Amino acid sequence: MHLTKSITAIGISAALIATAGFAASHSEKAASAAVNARHAQMQLIAYHTGILGGMAKGETEYNAEMATAAATNLNAAAGFAPGTLWLEGTEQGAVEGSRAKAEIWSDAEGFNEALMALETASADMIEAAGTDLDALRAGMGAIGKACGACHDDYRGPKN
Amino acid sequence: MHLTKSITAIGISAALIATAGFAASHSEKAASAAVNARHAQMQLIAYHTGILGGMAKGETEYNAEMATAAATNLNAAAGFAPGTLWLEGTEQGAVEGSRAKAEIWSDAEGFNEALMALETASADMIEAAGTDLDALRAGMGAIGKACGACHDDYRGPKN
Repeated sequence: MHLTKSITAIGISAALIATAGFAASHSEKAASAAVNARHAQMQLIAYHTGILGGMAKGETEYNAEMATAAATNLNAAAGFAPGTLWLEGTEQGAVEGSRAKAEIWSDAEGFNEALMALETASADMIEAAGTDLDALRAGMGAIGKACGACHDDYRGPKN
Repeated sequence: MHLTKSITAIGISAALIATAGFAASHSEKAASAAVNARHAQMQLIAYHTGILGGMAKGETEYNAEMATAAATNLNAAAGFAPGTLWLEGTEQGAVEGSRAKAEIWSDAEGFNEALMALETASADMIEAAGTDLDALRAGMGAIGKACGACHDDYRGPKN
């Protein structure tokens, strides 16, 4: 009873302050760390997409176990909760190295949908990648499309 | 029927070649990419542990929503399938920047247990972090212990 009440109270206050309050209470160092963490996330997405893409293109031998692990990890990397990573005030121009467009925050719903497209495509890839090379190849399109669409709309030009 | 048979056949061959065959078929570039991807994983682990640690130490204000997201992401980062990241032949000395001890491969069972300790500690933290600051603080010990134990046994000296 007491616990339930506490959780409810925390839930409401957390929803009100959301990420903006958290970012505001933080230093430039924290903003920079968030940008670096996003780059680490993107690196893990690119790395695992690259393993799948290498097999799809025939550059590396198809290996069902490795392909399944790559798809699983791609899905995990795509699925990070955005709240710790996309702190308000960390857009391109505000923090060194950031290429995040302001639309990530002004169009948060669209951004979440764009992230979700990669989560869905990579979830589908987990089974496809372990089935055979044709299935893996067939799944690559949705992954590439999700990457490109999000970058087109929410990533700024090179710094 | 046909599909089931194919999956079984792939499963057996994949188990036999495991990661060694995959690594052997790869270039130095792939080995280096694996090491960089591991660093990205460690960065995401450190970043999210840092958010929780900052709240535990009172350096930043406790925020249940952010703490839950940090614990969720820490758990996701700890849970990456090791097969794509810890390729044989990428130990310290063999690949620039690697601090991976050879024991990761010679004692794969111990290494998997060490990784699992962080998965378990971070899974427990998901609920604790959202409960209150005391619960978050109580959960930090197991996380720090898991990090330290794995580094002691499986991470080499600074390069």
